[in-house]
Amino acid sequence: MTASHHDDLPARITLRYEPAGKSVRVPNGVSVFDAALWNGVAVDSTCGGHGTCRKCKVRIVDSETPVAAADERAFTPEQLADGWRLACLTTAHHDLVIDVPELTTRPKAATVGVGRQVILRPAVQKRFLELDEPTLADQRTDIQRVRDAMDDLELAVDIEVLRTLGRDLRAANWAVTAVVVGTHLVALEAGDTTDRRFGVAIDLGTTTAVATLMDLSTGAPVAVSSMLNRQQPFGADVISRISATMLDPEALGRLRDLAQSTLADLTVDVLVEARVTPDEVYEVALAGNATMMQLLLGIDPEPLGVAPFILASAHFEGLRAADLGVPIHPRARATVFPALGAYVGGDIVAGALAAGMDRDKRLRLFIDIGTNCEIILADGERLVCTAAPAGPAFEAASISSGMRAAPGAIEVVTIDDEGLHLEVIGGEAPVGLCGSGLVDVVAELARVGCIDPSGRFLSDERLAEVHPALAPRFINRDGERVFVLATAEESGDGSQVVLSQRDVRELQFAKAAISTGWRLLAEEIGVEANDIQQVLLAGSFGTYLSAKSAITIGLVPKIPAARIVSAGNVAGEGAKMALLSEPERHGALALIDEIDYVELSDRTDFNDRFVDELAFPV
Amino acid sequence: MTASHHDDLPARITLRYEPAGKSVRVPNGVSVFDAALWNGVAVDSTCGGHGTCRKCKVRIVDSETPVAAADERAFTPEQLADGWRLACLTTAHHDLVIDVPELTTRPKAATVGVGRQVILRPAVQKRFLELDEPTLADQRTDIQRVRDAMDDLELAVDIEVLRTLGRDLRAANWAVTAVVVGTHLVALEAGDTTDRRFGVAIDLGTTTAVATLMDLSTGAPVAVSSMLNRQQPFGADVISRISATMLDPEALGRLRDLAQSTLADLTVDVLVEARVTPDEVYEVALAGNATMMQLLLGIDPEPLGVAPFILASAHFEGLRAADLGVPIHPRARATVFPALGAYVGGDIVAGALAAGMDRDKRLRLFIDIGTNCEIILADGERLVCTAAPAGPAFEAASISSGMRAAPGAIEVVTIDDEGLHLEVIGGEAPVGLCGSGLVDVVAELARVGCIDPSGRFLSDERLAEVHPALAPRFINRDGERVFVLATAEESGDGSQVVLSQRDVRELQFAKAAISTGWRLLAEEIGVEANDIQQVLLAGSFGTYLSAKSAITIGLVPKIPAARIVSAGNVAGEGAKMALLSEPERHGALALIDEIDYVELSDRTDFNDRFVDELAFPV
Repeated sequence: MTASHHDDLPARITLRYEPAGKSVRVPNGVSVFDAALWNGVAVDSTCGGHGTCRKCKVRIVDSETPVAAADERAFTPEQLADGWRLACLTTAHHDLVIDVPELTTRPKAATVGVGRQVILRPAVQKRFLELDEPTLADQRTDIQRVRDAMDDLELAVDIEVLRTLGRDLRAANWAVTAVVVGTHLVALEAGDTTDRRFGVAIDLGTTTAVATLMDLSTGAPVAVSSMLNRQQPFGADVISRISATMLDPEALGRLRDLAQSTLADLTVDVLVEARVTPDEVYEVALAGNATMMQLLLGIDPEPLGVAPFILASAHFEGLRAADLGVPIHPRARATVFPALGAYVGGDIVAGALAAGMDRDKRLRLFIDIGTNCEIILADGERLVCTAAPAGPAFEAASISSGMRAAPGAIEVVTIDDEGLHLEVIGGEAPVGLCGSGLVDVVAELARVGCIDPSGRFLSDERLAEVHPALAPRFINRDGERVFVLATAEESGDGSQVVLSQRDVRELQFAKAAISTGWRLLAEEIGVEANDIQQVLLAGSFGTYLSAKSAITIGLVPKIPAARIVSAGNVAGEGAKMALLSEPERHGALALIDEIDYVELSDRTDFNDRFVDELAFPV
Repeated sequence: MTASHHDDLPARITLRYEPAGKSVRVPNGVSVFDAALWNGVAVDSTCGGHGTCRKCKVRIVDSETPVAAADERAFTPEQLADGWRLACLTTAHHDLVIDVPELTTRPKAATVGVGRQVILRPAVQKRFLELDEPTLADQRTDIQRVRDAMDDLELAVDIEVLRTLGRDLRAANWAVTAVVVGTHLVALEAGDTTDRRFGVAIDLGTTTAVATLMDLSTGAPVAVSSMLNRQQPFGADVISRISATMLDPEALGRLRDLAQSTLADLTVDVLVEARVTPDEVYEVALAGNATMMQLLLGIDPEPLGVAPFILASAHFEGLRAADLGVPIHPRARATVFPALGAYVGGDIVAGALAAGMDRDKRLRLFIDIGTNCEIILADGERLVCTAAPAGPAFEAASISSGMRAAPGAIEVVTIDDEGLHLEVIGGEAPVGLCGSGLVDVVAELARVGCIDPSGRFLSDERLAEVHPALAPRFINRDGERVFVLATAEESGDGSQVVLSQRDVRELQFAKAAISTGWRLLAEEIGVEANDIQQVLLAGSFGTYLSAKSAITIGLVPKIPAARIVSAGNVAGEGAKMALLSEPERHGALALIDEIDYVELSDRTDFNDRFVDELAFPV
């Protein structure tokens, strides 16, 4: 339950944890346990906040707090009167001060995401159990014997575990390691295997998929692998893949199989690299956009592709790794990030979690740049978000000399009085222009005045005045004006590398859509764009973008370049966090309820605002 | 939660429902809602007691009762102070008086089991929903739109439903019938199909399986079919089937397949007979003994077959009909009765439920006669139960002329001064002796004195004195004394039908095991066997047994024959009850916690007691 369900209550409240003296602002209705863990305040627990272990004892200072049934079993009436409660069963609806007793065990932590310190509370737990053999005087069922040895957990048991349970327990001579994922008992392993537990974090992008094998005992990544999404033959963007399913009834099944085989190959890669067997990996956490998720799960994506853009479901509960085609333990579970909307998917929610968008008091802007560009603006009190249709500028195919960020791609462009300076990936002769190079060259040409604020190349006469050294590089080719970045002789493949007037227009459309997006969000929460204290650029494109160039063309607000930060693959970081901490996973769910989505295509003023934003800032 | 978890509290308490004035004794810790429904007191509810519909409003008179969070939303502070609570969230821990408001809807009921009146609250619900089409201003996910239209339920949604949800809703023009089973949304059907919902109740016996198709809207059975369990080639009893799995690693899979094909064929039979399509059947309820359950589910049964006789699990949650091989709706759910022990399975729990063993104040004895004989003794306060190893007397194969109760079987035997009178199934010439005939002939021979109290046939000299008309029927055959029921000429197949001295011994062993069982149970709860007010004979054998003969040989206590009642196929009746009422299903779970199991093989005095019981009563 979150603030949205209690409209009469404050949306956010302040909790102060003592003796640490740490004050945190959290959504109304969050549990005192989750709020502590999200903010790095360690509270004892073995059940991970499910109300069963009764270890998360805290004292609520000077406040009347309802008593749950489990509280009555955990505390004496005197303790209850004194404010003692189980933190995981206590939801906070107004400001509270909470006394947290000293820990009986020291929690481990790992740093993930954008400097996030995550206390290790993986959903995957292992318990070594030495069970008594049954006798005529103790005829408990096999599964009850196992449950009784872990009575702080309330477990669901798959029929597959029961099929061999009797044989497994007896073969192991009643000494087994129980493998629990969340509330599921997934396996009983002979002997003590508690030192081996792994999970796979996956970011499934439209273009690229990345898998990281995580050691859940230490919180450390042990292997990483990435590859292109095998769905590429069905089109570069989500719309072309959705269209494919509308034209061909077989396409959905094939897209599902291709996505699953992508994940399977990545998983095998990381397992081999880390010398971990599939049976030691008990959970996969996955972040992907809404279309990737629905295709991966074989869910008809058509309603995502046509107005009013509807998700089948924001959440997918109860999934197994096998449902995603991920070849780890046969009963491994899967957790996938919930989506906020058809165009703000689980990848963005994962990214927002990893970036701590809900836990920072600064006014921050999060932009994941792509064909569909997701934007979040937050100030620690409000989170607003939108999806901006940036168009194909960042796709190689729509740009004259566009290419992926691969060897031979121009990634950095600077212009000075002498002329043009290029940095090419791999240090090779240039063969094309990747996204960051595109933004750079347009920004530099605009900065030196070769492109006017409306985006037009200057006439040859004006160019000769403004930048004589560069003027000869503006030529006519096939009836179109282009700027030559590399001549046929300079290039690595004998073809010119150019920036066309149309390329500039494509970039203008993209940047106008994006800046319209964040300007409207700023209005939504009543702040000035220039007050933004940090801009996080996410996704593979955003990571390599030059902050200076982004400011020059107006893609991001005009703030000091040092405050524009590459956030990296935050979706993948979010997936890692979900593996390492169940409370963080709950945090993603809370985010869904906290973020207000602003639909741009529904706004009558969008087109006017968009046209206003087409020009470059002067 | 039941009494066993609150050892300091009374085991049973009295609830009085007003204005009906109905007082009921129920286990401590039961919800006020369940207790009402078990006892035929109707309380409003649409969610079936899950705490979500907030319709089961009752007033707890003069008692301090904890306030649940949902109570706070359902009632004003004044109402709370006045004792108003949601019945399903109120657990009773001491005697209470409860005011039940008049119903807003009239509940339907059906009579099932041993005269049990069951209020229809099937787990299978249908709701016709007319949904608003999504718009840019209302971008709720497809599943959220469905959930919002049924917000009194908290549903789990299978991924399979999500796969086609978008298409299904749009093809149906947003007018759909939601099919809910318990907490699972299993289907969305185009248009209004609320008048069609069915379930299959199955009793899977070691020998015979019976399926009944139930119309869940009316509570009426619409078709019944029975057949032999296809596992027969692996042996007649559970031990031979368990042994098969220990000898041959392939046997478990084959036994599972044979059980599943038995259920599949029965299901097809009832569907065809009732002209119901598989897609209109959303749940199967199944009762079977522990071995049948484990074999059906492919669970290694070895620990059931060897001391100390251990179940893999008492409960099987979250099953689908497909897990049992039952070919109904592809996402139909399955509910199976929990077992109390390796030799007191779900069939007996179902039978105890159908017989109302926990809800009758009379001292009652329930006996399910078979190779393994289950016995329950209850007095409305205490329920005790045991399993008696009756041996093979009731199996045709171990008796000289034994046969199943089929045409040609002698089923009734009476002896008068003139001689022997037989009743044969189908009115044909006799070819063998079925179980009821066996008990009859032994009882009659004992009654007229041809068998002495120790079970021995009298000598020819004594026979000539005691019963001259019958004496010639005692002959020597193959070195053994036998009593000829039908000569080769009288019989239907040219072979003698006889009762041998060894047959009498087999029956004595069986009756001694059974009577030792109920005598020990009577001691356990401190009553005299002769105070038993009713004996229920369950199972196919018990149903046909002559009460008089059962008394004569001491199989049942010596009470008036009219109090010995054939209970019929109570396991199947329990399965029907589970289909018709979720609260009754919870009742089966409560039974498991209430019944105290007495292990006979663990008792040092069992053998002495057994020997004492071998003789016939004089």
